[in-house]
Parts: sequence; C-alpha cells; structure tokens
Amino acid sequence: MNARVGGLELGGTKTVVAIGTAEGIIMEEFRYPTTSPGETLTIAIDWLRQRGPIAKIGIASFGPIRLHRHACDFGTLLRTPKTAWQGFSLAKFFREQLPETFLCIDTDVNAALLGELQCGAARGMRNVIYLTVGTGIGAGVFCEGNLVCGTLHPEFGHLYIPRHQDDSFVGVCPFHRDCLEGLASGPAMEKRWGLAGNQLPLEHAAWEMEAWYLAQGIYSACTLLMPEIILLGGGVSQKEGLLEQVTASLDELGNGYFESYVNRLRRPALGQQAGIIGALLLCR
Amino acid sequence: MNARVGGLELGGTKTVVAIGTAEGIIMEEFRYPTTSPGETLTIAIDWLRQRGPIAKIGIASFGPIRLHRHACDFGTLLRTPKTAWQGFSLAKFFREQLPETFLCIDTDVNAALLGELQCGAARGMRNVIYLTVGTGIGAGVFCEGNLVCGTLHPEFGHLYIPRHQDDSFVGVCPFHRDCLEGLASGPAMEKRWGLAGNQLPLEHAAWEMEAWYLAQGIYSACTLLMPEIILLGGGVSQKEGLLEQVTASLDELGNGYFESYVNRLRRPALGQQAGIIGALLLCR
Repeated sequence: MNARVGGLELGGTKTVVAIGTAEGIIMEEFRYPTTSPGETLTIAIDWLRQRGPIAKIGIASFGPIRLHRHACDFGTLLRTPKTAWQGFSLAKFFREQLPETFLCIDTDVNAALLGELQCGAARGMRNVIYLTVGTGIGAGVFCEGNLVCGTLHPEFGHLYIPRHQDDSFVGVCPFHRDCLEGLASGPAMEKRWGLAGNQLPLEHAAWEMEAWYLAQGIYSACTLLMPEIILLGGGVSQKEGLLEQVTASLDELGNGYFESYVNRLRRPALGQQAGIIGALLLCR
Repeated sequence: MNARVGGLELGGTKTVVAIGTAEGIIMEEFRYPTTSPGETLTIAIDWLRQRGPIAKIGIASFGPIRLHRHACDFGTLLRTPKTAWQGFSLAKFFREQLPETFLCIDTDVNAALLGELQCGAARGMRNVIYLTVGTGIGAGVFCEGNLVCGTLHPEFGHLYIPRHQDDSFVGVCPFHRDCLEGLASGPAMEKRWGLAGNQLPLEHAAWEMEAWYLAQGIYSACTLLMPEIILLGGGVSQKEGLLEQVTASLDELGNGYFESYVNRLRRPALGQQAGIIGALLLCR
C-alpha cells in the first residue's frame, strides 16, 4: 500500500487541501475560499490533523515565492499585490504546525504542469509550457525534462507584448500597467469592457482581442523554448472557442516560419484537479 | 594526451575551422568568409584533411537547423533567408567527406553559450541566456543545467515586442517584418538610419532605441526563465556603452518587481572565440 501524503493548493481565491498518495491519487479533498494567511492555513492544518499523521505535504502556492530549499527565506511569499500574504512564510508556519512532516513547495502552475506531465495531457513529453489565465497570468515551464525554477520561478504574466491596434486600455498591473497580465487577465477584461469574462458573449470583440494577446504571449515563449505542446488553463481560458481563436492568431503571427500550432495548443486534461494532483505529486 | 578533434563554426558571414581538444583548447584555426555551401565546406574539409585524421568534429551552425540526431533531416538547414543553404544537409556532406568522423552538431549560439559555460563568464551556472545581436538575433539557452533544443532550437529573434514610441520603421524580417530581429538587428539599424551600427556615433538616438529594443527582448526571456546572468554577444552589442544602456532599460521595465539587472547582464568572456571553442566542446 502506498503511504499517505498531504496536498495543499493555495490559490488567490480558493484553497484545496487533500489526502492522497504521492502518485497523485486523491483519497479525500476539501475546497474553501482563501482568506487571511492564518485563517486559511489553520483550516487546512485542522482538516489534515483530523485525518491522522502524514510524512510529507506538497504545497502548490501562488507566487512570487522563494523555492530554493536552502535560502533563508525558503517558502516565503515575496512582493505581491495580496498584501496580507506578502512576507508570510509558509515554510515556517508548516514546520511549526506539522514538525514531523516534510515540506515540498512549488508554484501552483508548476504543480498543475506536473499533474499534466504525470497523469494528463503532457505524458511522456520533455518540453511543455502550461499557461494559466484567470485572476493573474502565470506559466509553468518543463524544459528538457526539468521544471524550471531559475533564480525565482517563471513570472511570465509580466512580459510586455505589442498592443492590439484597437486597444487604448491603460492596463491593470500595479507594477507594469500594460504587461500581459495587465492587459489580458480576468480583472483586465472586466475593467476594460465593464463585464466579467463569463458575462461577455462569445461574439463580443473582447474575445478576438483576448485571443490576440494570449497568442502574443505564447508565441514569445515558444520562440525561446520550442515546446512540443502548450496547455492553456485557468478560468478565462475555458471560454468556448477561445483556444481555437488563440491557435489561429498564433499561426498568423508565425506566418509559416514556425510549425503550425493546430493541435499543439491544448486544454489541460485534468481541468480543475491539476493543481491539487500536482501538489500530491510534489511529494515523490 | 587528449585526443584531437575538429571544430567548425559556420556563420552567416564568416566561417572558422579548427583543430583542438574536446576540452575547448584550440591548437590551430583558420577563418575565412562564408560563401556557397560547397565552396565553404570544401575549404574546411581540405584544411582538416591536411592536419590528419580526427575522431570527432563539432559543428556550430547558423540556423534554423534540425538538431535531433534521429530525425531523417538531422543536420539539414531549414527555411532560411540564405537561400543557397536552405535544404542543405551538413550531416550528409560530412558523412560523405569524413566517413570515419563522428558528427556533433548544434547551433552557433548554443555552442558559444557552451564555451562560456565551460571556460568563460558563465562557469558553474545552471540558468543562462546568451543573446547574439549582429546580422541576425539569436539566443542560446541553458536551463536547469541543459542546453535547450525543444522541437527545433530557440528562434528568439522572431518574438514580437512593443514598438518604441519614436519608431515608425517597417522592419526588415522577411517573415515577420517587425519582430525583434526585424527591428533591432544590424541590417535593421542600417536600413532605419542609413548608416551601419559601427558608423553611428555614440550619442546618436539610434543607440537609445536599440538598447530599449534589446531590453524588451531580454526582459521577455527573463520573465520565463529567470536566468542567473544574460550574456550579450555579437557585433552590434559590442558598441561602447550599449550594455549599460540595456541594463538601465531593463531595470526601468522591471520597475522594482524583478531583481536589478546590474551585473546580471554581462559581456561574454571569450569574445569572438566563444563559437569555435564551443564547437570543440560539442565533441565531449
């Protein structure tokens, strides 16, 4: 029998805690809204304690967060617009609350990508980008068989892209204004058009523009990494028809110089479960 | 005594052939202009033959070129504006001409990066980007300890970046017009300003714009890979003061969200020798 491990997916709006195996099998899970650090994590700890001891816990967290195990601020949330979480140390909290439990921490997108690599749409591949588009925009990167961390971890939402010719919106990123996240995240769409993405009808011009911006970001990443596939996850990107629009924009941008993106831009196979499955897989 | 190997750096304008060791020590080298495939490579083969048998040859070639050893078009130059080379198979040519010699092929930029990693400015690092700016713009990528190949190899010159507010130049890329290479390569500068880069004085507005464009490209790459350092190589980038201008632009773009680029954007230590040293190192 496989040993039980814990998993925690810490998102900007929702948190998922689970018990399962390091092979990504979920035995039981609990979803609830993310609030303050103390409240959010105490709920998770109490839920886990009620289910008995675990040797390891995999934490898939929003970023930016220090991932280098031997850094003095390992597991600490860095400069983020979520001010209540800025400077909060997940590592310190869990080491105090669950001193017998080994911590495995990565970003939420890297964990979701890991889920797709082990159990989903990217099985057996060596070069994959997982893009999530929702409250923020982030990327997990698997490059020549390794999850990319670098000096921090990808912060791909903050790259700059050309402006769409019909767009004069100022952008919502507090640091960069009109970076990709500033122009194409869920909050950017809502502020530009006065309606949330899920309320904007399919035929609204918003979707052509959104597809064009996402294509710019994906295209930039591909010129550098040449992945086999790109997975488009997150709330905004689940809009019907968007994936096909982004694919068409990508092929226009490439103009025949690059291989077509048809069938290379795909949806995650694990959907909303990718993050928590990935959190369990971090324990391997 | 170390075994002798051959090295070939095949550039758009010049070619370098050398005899040395797989540790990157050059014993003898010969530089000459790149012309047609047959003429250029026959000069290299004759020069090598006169120096006795070699067990291996490392070839550092301009791209795009197929690098996957087991692909049927391994070592073949793909769609390129250099039409005489398009479809030419380096692997077939060398296997016919030097049938006893093992071929190791990579891009010129990956080889230059390898040189810097083993013997130059990037020793001991795990995440490094080498950007070359000259006739074209290309990148070599070392990510979590591996040279990045992906489905082809980086084609970083072709990403799109925002336009500089004072720039109405149409761009020179035959495929994408105003991608990074189309706006910031040597030929782009010359066509925009009517003078080659080395004739444009230091105080000319061209350099502020060039620095800004290069910063946009580097910044995009860094949001994805978070490298420890970025090496800026190639003819254009050797202009006095340009590295400092690019660094300043990078810090403006990051706006405090990212670690400063001061001392992270560097010059290659091996200069013009990086490519041929890297070609020898490919034989390891």
